[in-house]
Amino acid sequence: MQIHVETFAVHKRFPLTISRGTTTESTNVWVRVERDGIEGWGEATPFSAGREPQTTEAAIAALQAIAKASGSTRPLDRQLIEQLCIEFQTPSTARAALDVALHDWLGKKVGLPLWGLWGLQLKRIVPTSVTIGIASPDAARERARQWLQATQVQMFKVKLGSPEGIEADRAMLMAVREEAPPQIQFSVDANGGWSLDDAVKMCNLLADWGIKYVEQPLPVEATDELSKLYEKSPLPIFVDESCFTSGDIPQLADRVHGINIKLMKCGGLTEAMRMVHTAKACGLQVMYGCYSDSALANTAMSHLAPLADYLDLDSHLNLIDDPFLGATVQDGRLVPNNLPGLGVQHRASES
Amino acid sequence: MQIHVETFAVHKRFPLTISRGTTTESTNVWVRVERDGIEGWGEATPFSAGREPQTTEAAIAALQAIAKASGSTRPLDRQLIEQLCIEFQTPSTARAALDVALHDWLGKKVGLPLWGLWGLQLKRIVPTSVTIGIASPDAARERARQWLQATQVQMFKVKLGSPEGIEADRAMLMAVREEAPPQIQFSVDANGGWSLDDAVKMCNLLADWGIKYVEQPLPVEATDELSKLYEKSPLPIFVDESCFTSGDIPQLADRVHGINIKLMKCGGLTEAMRMVHTAKACGLQVMYGCYSDSALANTAMSHLAPLADYLDLDSHLNLIDDPFLGATVQDGRLVPNNLPGLGVQHRASES
Repeated sequence: MQIHVETFAVHKRFPLTISRGTTTESTNVWVRVERDGIEGWGEATPFSAGREPQTTEAAIAALQAIAKASGSTRPLDRQLIEQLCIEFQTPSTARAALDVALHDWLGKKVGLPLWGLWGLQLKRIVPTSVTIGIASPDAARERARQWLQATQVQMFKVKLGSPEGIEADRAMLMAVREEAPPQIQFSVDANGGWSLDDAVKMCNLLADWGIKYVEQPLPVEATDELSKLYEKSPLPIFVDESCFTSGDIPQLADRVHGINIKLMKCGGLTEAMRMVHTAKACGLQVMYGCYSDSALANTAMSHLAPLADYLDLDSHLNLIDDPFLGATVQDGRLVPNNLPGLGVQHRASES
Repeated sequence: MQIHVETFAVHKRFPLTISRGTTTESTNVWVRVERDGIEGWGEATPFSAGREPQTTEAAIAALQAIAKASGSTRPLDRQLIEQLCIEFQTPSTARAALDVALHDWLGKKVGLPLWGLWGLQLKRIVPTSVTIGIASPDAARERARQWLQATQVQMFKVKLGSPEGIEADRAMLMAVREEAPPQIQFSVDANGGWSLDDAVKMCNLLADWGIKYVEQPLPVEATDELSKLYEKSPLPIFVDESCFTSGDIPQLADRVHGINIKLMKCGGLTEAMRMVHTAKACGLQVMYGCYSDSALANTAMSHLAPLADYLDLDSHLNLIDDPFLGATVQDGRLVPNNLPGLGVQHRASES
């Protein structure tokens, strides 16, 4: 098979600030796997929370190495290609792009959308949350207003863990809640920005306010504190930066209520499925998240969405120059279409 | 879709005795799911180690109830049908038959064997063990000779846990080892027939003899003793009767080295896949086993075989009247063919 690799830049309509910093744009990688006249597509998106360098350049280099080594391999040979990626120590963003492209190829080959191939029901897809970054209360209120005008929002995810402390978190969240109609649900994400004391205080407050769950309240290294928070928190705790692959899940099962699965962390749909299965066997809930992914990667995850308890696949909704079209927002839910494979098209290629 | 249910009897060439009793025949259920001119096949095999009644009659009644309720359902709607089975409290043997049939239908619909659809590599399939039941040393030696003449054996699984005690176990195993060429590998299965003391003694002996692993050394209820054995045993411990579904795995992870996955216990290929993923995430090995399954159910598991560390899918090799043809034994390995779906044919339908 042939593997084609090229980059594309995407720019955010509204810059996104989280506890670690601000993002305005991203240079992602578009992978195309070709064989038998069929092309399968995938995307690698760089991110900063990695355990290994997850840069655009590292993804390109890794994909080019795989492309050289896999000339006679068929796109159906996913177990073989995964083994090759392990041997090559391929970064997870590059593995994700490749695995998604191989699945897209498979779906196109057999003429079924991935959700159909997997036997899933689209009506089980819950609404995706849309994200409001760290900002002043007024700016956050304005961002909420913009989201509500632009998209059928059913759930907000508010980024907390402000460098200015939990009083700033509280003021910002209160401003967004005031702006939102009462039926809107909320989650929050501290991106590891709180101490244990702050987290306990905030979780009690957030539970009183009817927030659904809190994501990554503590830094990754605070594993003992996570157990203590789990005992005290009236709110479900999800982890993101603390959980990359299925192998991370069993040791988290006694200290969290759920995990955030992201294609770029785990390395593809194959591993995302393993994480869903492992988490559920461990009695945990699952949510899916994203980085600066375009519609390509978020559409890929939308095919697995009938298995998720919560969804946060909104990054492409905040791009001014997303090259791709795929799953569409229907009543706040990101729903894949009926086309074979991912059902993703390139805007520039449309006639 | 239409669901057709009929029974068929299979008879063992050589009766099989384990610690719980002797089996000479079995009445299994053949399920055919039909839609769009395509038929998907599955099998329900009764077994006695169940947590719920796993009789042929219970499977038939459950499948007839599902057949009535699922008239407008499509074979692709596996998530919906699984939910229906949960609501109907369908026994796992009936669920297994249905889930396998739906997968066979899918593979035939898209024109790919299941192993191809799943992206797996047939060359990763390890040899299947063949089973020698509890018998006198002379009878066991004779059974080993028969296996060696009839099949390309690479691994024996010897049933221990004799009601006559571990001295009888030891004498029988020694007889089989004497009969087998030196390159043959061995595992043993006590089917819960040992006390902790017996198990510790036997595991030390078995390790000295180069046995690869021991299966279900202790009764299901001996969970604390299992922890103690795990600390003391020089031999890998697998559980069978202690582990039915993926939800059983996390709490076993600190006291066993592996699990035995069986279609009839877990309820189908969908759950078998979940068990593989969960076990591997928990750092456990996996083996696949069978009851009195014909080539139909064993061929279904052979499609997942590239993910297994050990295989024990030999029941159909000991039948005199297996109605089905599917995966074939190649150099001791049970290998599925390249036909779409399961690649199983009915002998009577062959021209």
